[in-house]
Amino acid sequence: MRKIKLIVSYDGTDYHGFQTQPGGATIQDELEKAIAHLTGKSVRITGSGRTDAGVHARGQVVHFDTDSSIPPEKWAAALNSKLPEDIIVRHSEAVLPDFHARYDVTAKTYKYLIDQGPVKNVFLRNRAWHIPQTLNLNRMKEAAQYLEGEHDFTSFCSAKTDVEDRVRTLYQVEIKEEGTDGNEIWLTFRGSGFLYNMVRIMTGTLVEVGMGQRGPLEIRQLLLEKDRTRAGKTAPPHGLYLWSVEYKKTTGPRV
Amino acid sequence: MRKIKLIVSYDGTDYHGFQTQPGGATIQDELEKAIAHLTGKSVRITGSGRTDAGVHARGQVVHFDTDSSIPPEKWAAALNSKLPEDIIVRHSEAVLPDFHARYDVTAKTYKYLIDQGPVKNVFLRNRAWHIPQTLNLNRMKEAAQYLEGEHDFTSFCSAKTDVEDRVRTLYQVEIKEEGTDGNEIWLTFRGSGFLYNMVRIMTGTLVEVGMGQRGPLEIRQLLLEKDRTRAGKTAPPHGLYLWSVEYKKTTGPRV
Repeated sequence: MRKIKLIVSYDGTDYHGFQTQPGGATIQDELEKAIAHLTGKSVRITGSGRTDAGVHARGQVVHFDTDSSIPPEKWAAALNSKLPEDIIVRHSEAVLPDFHARYDVTAKTYKYLIDQGPVKNVFLRNRAWHIPQTLNLNRMKEAAQYLEGEHDFTSFCSAKTDVEDRVRTLYQVEIKEEGTDGNEIWLTFRGSGFLYNMVRIMTGTLVEVGMGQRGPLEIRQLLLEKDRTRAGKTAPPHGLYLWSVEYKKTTGPRV
Repeated sequence: MRKIKLIVSYDGTDYHGFQTQPGGATIQDELEKAIAHLTGKSVRITGSGRTDAGVHARGQVVHFDTDSSIPPEKWAAALNSKLPEDIIVRHSEAVLPDFHARYDVTAKTYKYLIDQGPVKNVFLRNRAWHIPQTLNLNRMKEAAQYLEGEHDFTSFCSAKTDVEDRVRTLYQVEIKEEGTDGNEIWLTFRGSGFLYNMVRIMTGTLVEVGMGQRGPLEIRQLLLEKDRTRAGKTAPPHGLYLWSVEYKKTTGPRV
């Protein structure tokens, strides 16, 4: 028996999220189908965490156990030959038997893409939140600073969250202009862990700061209030990317 | 009667090209349907030129005549409310009655996107040519210089072309690295006009130079030979973008 770790990218547009559910059409279903196709055996994979319907990934990490003789580094190409074109395995490797894609996470990075063009960019229609009003990035950057560090993020997670401990550490929140037209605003959030909808609520709140509807300093107050109803709207799913997942020990290169 | 000019962007993935054809599913069909929907009258539009199946546009230009009372600058939003989400009108304006989207072109810019990542970027799967082997950009830049200027481009157009005069002027060929990962190579071609498949054949040939299969100086020889069979392969359509079209006089801003 061998434990295989995969780094997987996907365009979440046509899926009901990462995790298997009764309605089907999930990333997990497609990966498990492709593995079964290669090995002739049904298998259960474990991801670093869920992503919602419409959310994308550049570097989701999953693990599974197999007694297949496929060499670990060949799994990526083998799976890509079976997967639909909107899911691509970027890397595969063997890991120690005690590796766990969810429990062993030391940090995660999410990115959120905003399309600031006056008219929606047709190529980003399923990949960015289109906001034609000009956002004040300096205000947003100031506000983002107050999110960094160790805080109770109750105000910035879905009220449906049943996790008791809502203290997380955000190592960095970065806001950058990119793209051929300078119209792409990338928000990058790197942290120890994230609560349900946390990145989308932080993004929605930072956008309200950028529109002048809130002051940057309000973020500090919001963190203290621990009340979801006081923060901004949840940004739409299709601008969000699970960018990368970090682990303490890895047998292979980070890609 | 009023003449309306539109600047249109589209993701060509799901279309059989710009121009109406028996099989349907063309950009022209969709635009004409949307205009008819708004005005109740069938109308014929004229584009700056065709684009092939799978080819994209950021700034295709079309014109049409209408007696509709819709204000010229409102056509963009009105059409966008009727068009499928992979076609977006970026700008609309009234132009002089003698304006012609094809005959009045003074220059066109095409871009071609190459994905240089070791594994295909899932978000560029329909939008870039994935070439995992490292291209030598310096060699490609040197070769590109020899394409600039006024030349007979017979070697760089489809053998099917029935145009007699194959002399065109390329004002600029630029090659640039971009993208979050530095893995996007954008080739930009600005010229007086382009022959059938010309950008895709120039791109295919430059890629062969980048791979070391040809010397940069061969480009000069190829131009003199006027023989399509001597140039490189035609690059795939899905990396190509009609980026912008220029006209001598325009009543509105270039966007």
